[in-house]
Amino acid sequence: MPESVHIKAVVFDAYGTLFDVASIDEQLSDHFGDKAPEVAALWRRKQLEYTWLRTLMNRYRNFEGLTRDALVYACEKLMLTIETSTIDDLMDHYKRLSVYPEVARALQSMSKHFKLAILSNANLNLLEQAVEHNEIHSFLNSIFSADEIGEFKPTPAVYQLPADGLRINKKEILFVSSNTWDVAGAKAAGMRVAWLKRRNDVMEQLGNAPDIIVGDLRELAGQLESVK
Amino acid sequence: MPESVHIKAVVFDAYGTLFDVASIDEQLSDHFGDKAPEVAALWRRKQLEYTWLRTLMNRYRNFEGLTRDALVYACEKLMLTIETSTIDDLMDHYKRLSVYPEVARALQSMSKHFKLAILSNANLNLLEQAVEHNEIHSFLNSIFSADEIGEFKPTPAVYQLPADGLRINKKEILFVSSNTWDVAGAKAAGMRVAWLKRRNDVMEQLGNAPDIIVGDLRELAGQLESVK
Repeated sequence: MPESVHIKAVVFDAYGTLFDVASIDEQLSDHFGDKAPEVAALWRRKQLEYTWLRTLMNRYRNFEGLTRDALVYACEKLMLTIETSTIDDLMDHYKRLSVYPEVARALQSMSKHFKLAILSNANLNLLEQAVEHNEIHSFLNSIFSADEIGEFKPTPAVYQLPADGLRINKKEILFVSSNTWDVAGAKAAGMRVAWLKRRNDVMEQLGNAPDIIVGDLRELAGQLESVK
Repeated sequence: MPESVHIKAVVFDAYGTLFDVASIDEQLSDHFGDKAPEVAALWRRKQLEYTWLRTLMNRYRNFEGLTRDALVYACEKLMLTIETSTIDDLMDHYKRLSVYPEVARALQSMSKHFKLAILSNANLNLLEQAVEHNEIHSFLNSIFSADEIGEFKPTPAVYQLPADGLRINKKEILFVSSNTWDVAGAKAAGMRVAWLKRRNDVMEQLGNAPDIIVGDLRELAGQLESVK
């Protein structure tokens, strides 16, 4: 992190960054047995694709709705049947996702020096319940959802939401995401960006490299101590 | 096809619809051996993702450029090395892709009754050379490229290009694509749409179902005979 940068707020992506979606994969195993990894991979990919395609097509549907659609697609493609009640169960699980082990303590530490917020494609209903479930609401100033404007990341308008909501210039906001395309999108939109490299990913070839790379949020909190 | 529809032009997607990209996969085998199928799948996926992400990020780069980027990503992700000369070779292959076996005769037949055109994300340079290579230029009135407006399918603006260029109302244009997201995008943009089901795909859960489904272009030409 360049010393010249004065960071006033840290804004986090939700799924894969704060919340671990692996527990949904366990639920999938109950329903689909050894087909579960294939369902999980295709479901997640289609969920992402539908956020992008619907934004490009100008046919918005909220995250919960298109996540259901993506699961229906994955089952049709893999020739598996799924009951509506199973979809309901799986979607309900989004409200009870656990945070990664270091998250609560790291947020607590960072909240002493910075405004903290979430910026996610998910609708507020899902985000608020997951935040409550993990008892991290007291560390967060705000939760921003792409649903407010009816388009999804990585459009610049979505990354503008925390700047407007917190009344802080985008350049003074550090955005944190484990998703490589989200890192590139936030950087292209003018934020400072930390790539939280939780997995063995490589960066996208989209230009817009992150300002810093960290392995977990405790490491990020330590680095931010030096620029606070 | 509803009888009430008066079709004046038929517009085709390029890759996977007219041109068979499988011959690039053979080239990949020469370079990557048994890793080639993995490279091909990830390359194609990233190529698509980069068209969508760059449009959403408002960071346009032409199709040839981002196709190169996608190959670099795929190799990095799979921990394979690739020379710039190999990338050049593979990109050159885009200019010599073969059409599917029934394409030339079906285009010739349809060209007697309808204006025909291509609408593709690729830049004109690639498209024109592939068209020349297959000697199908005499059947086509126009080639439209997303490059003209600096954004990619499935934005409505891209699907507007043939309507403006041919001066035909979108409702009187039949768009033909083997790509399910492209079918949904064209339909959402107000065109008539035929899904060319070359592969064992299932339709996307994006609303906007196609008007007709055909197995190849000869079948389409036959169906259009009845509404010409």
